[in-house]
Amino acid sequence: MMAPIRNVAVVGAGLVGRGWAIVFAQAGHRVSVHDGSAEIRANVLDRIRQSLEDMAAAGLIDAIEPVMERITVADDLASTVSDADYVQESVFERTDVKRTISLEIDAAMRPDAVVGSSSSGIPSSAFTEGCTNRARFLIAHPVNPPHLIPLVELVPAPWTDAAVVEWLRAEMEAVGQAPIVVRKEVEGFVLNRLQGALLNEAWALFEDGVASTADIDLTISHGLGYRWSFMGPFETIDLNAPGGIADYAARLGPLYHSIALSRTRPRPWSPELVGAVEAERREKLSAAELSERGAWRDRKLMALVAHKHGSED
Amino acid sequence: MMAPIRNVAVVGAGLVGRGWAIVFAQAGHRVSVHDGSAEIRANVLDRIRQSLEDMAAAGLIDAIEPVMERITVADDLASTVSDADYVQESVFERTDVKRTISLEIDAAMRPDAVVGSSSSGIPSSAFTEGCTNRARFLIAHPVNPPHLIPLVELVPAPWTDAAVVEWLRAEMEAVGQAPIVVRKEVEGFVLNRLQGALLNEAWALFEDGVASTADIDLTISHGLGYRWSFMGPFETIDLNAPGGIADYAARLGPLYHSIALSRTRPRPWSPELVGAVEAERREKLSAAELSERGAWRDRKLMALVAHKHGSED
Repeated sequence: MMAPIRNVAVVGAGLVGRGWAIVFAQAGHRVSVHDGSAEIRANVLDRIRQSLEDMAAAGLIDAIEPVMERITVADDLASTVSDADYVQESVFERTDVKRTISLEIDAAMRPDAVVGSSSSGIPSSAFTEGCTNRARFLIAHPVNPPHLIPLVELVPAPWTDAAVVEWLRAEMEAVGQAPIVVRKEVEGFVLNRLQGALLNEAWALFEDGVASTADIDLTISHGLGYRWSFMGPFETIDLNAPGGIADYAARLGPLYHSIALSRTRPRPWSPELVGAVEAERREKLSAAELSERGAWRDRKLMALVAHKHGSED
Repeated sequence: MMAPIRNVAVVGAGLVGRGWAIVFAQAGHRVSVHDGSAEIRANVLDRIRQSLEDMAAAGLIDAIEPVMERITVADDLASTVSDADYVQESVFERTDVKRTISLEIDAAMRPDAVVGSSSSGIPSSAFTEGCTNRARFLIAHPVNPPHLIPLVELVPAPWTDAAVVEWLRAEMEAVGQAPIVVRKEVEGFVLNRLQGALLNEAWALFEDGVASTADIDLTISHGLGYRWSFMGPFETIDLNAPGGIADYAARLGPLYHSIALSRTRPRPWSPELVGAVEAERREKLSAAELSERGAWRDRKLMALVAHKHGSED
């Protein structure tokens, strides 16, 4: 029986690591943050405070100080990790970097602690094999930013203890995240495979001259995305035929299979294709406006989260 | 120069046709509704009123009566159509049914009117070739229900007048819909191809034992669906790399191509697979609860639409 989390270590304090610090501190845990860069360490509390102020302005949190008081920054990785029940690692995504930091964490961690990596693509079997505590390492891949979008993919390595996976699933739910379990280390895990399937079709439709990038975007933002913001693809089709999903599959399964058969020779996103897509996007939004539009996206996300908090489940 | 719509004929008064009647009447147009079934004709105004009451309860409309006053029901197809600037056809989706009704509309319409079909899959070239006014026929495929989800796919046949497409795009925007132009008659048009790509990957992930249907649903409803409820896939990735979409494509294009290469042998949704998916869904929601959950979905949709009306663009 594993004890619940009280102390969290966040290793790597970029955008993802800072989001994780907010998630855990908001839930009442003590959070110690470490980053290898002294410059990042010097700014991390200010940047977290700025995010909390944005959240308060959007009505997502009431008070900033109680959250800030639970977050500290440590200069030293070993002292950050040594007292933690759970370590969330969010360093740069390169196998050698992940391997080095995992060994450092392994050497400093309590043997009963658990280590989740924010890796979005590299499976933990690629960098935790040499760890003494490797049965307690797994992937805990969030969507960016984790304090606004709750999904977390838990991906065990072949040597991860099954009890650790179930424990982290419950702990993630307890802090308000939405964990899923990816049972096998497949490329792209689940989230990027689903996104990739849709993206590949979007790029192919544009390449084939079927629709503009703006019109393909509208199809999601003013069409499919409405339902998908509160229910997944299986529930959507379960409710889209009188007899439920088997009824839907009988009616539309052949169409979708035929669509799949039309895409058995996938084309890479060629430089010419990327150039043409880029040109259409830059007509809509110049490169100089990208960062301002990113802030718009974050405001829209916060408004959506506030809306979801106030609506029925 | 084509004149703006004032009078609309809605032919076929099932769920889709009734939604269209609401869209056009809410925008201030006069709407004449016809259905071949006397029973449906007898109930259509009551059912439209019920939908408007639901919308009023959700804060989406202020007054029901002004909308109801603009909607009439006609027993006779010819008289429904003869005065219309625009005909929205929403009869049962079978080629012979669509062909018969298109010829009837063709015989009764003004030669300067336009006819859009709600067909979700059959292209208009399959059923409008014999129409005298075939240059004025095209597909105008909505998402269900059209009065809550604004996307409309406009799909011209090879013989559709390009000016008709542009006119209908402007008229759809004027009534608050979000039209896109599908430049070629591809199977599934754009919306169902995008949905199908994601669904096929979802079914394959489940079949391969990678994740449960509930966890795949969470990946969308608590992950990817947040951003997609207000921006499309191209804008999403354009904002997900510092240098925009070309930068993103350089980083992640190879991963997505590799994912596509892993799915070049698509499997149909087999009876065994459908049975397994159905079993997981029925554990979450019994068949008896499907219709109640459909009402929940509609309330969630209306709450989302109210939220979007109140938030920045």
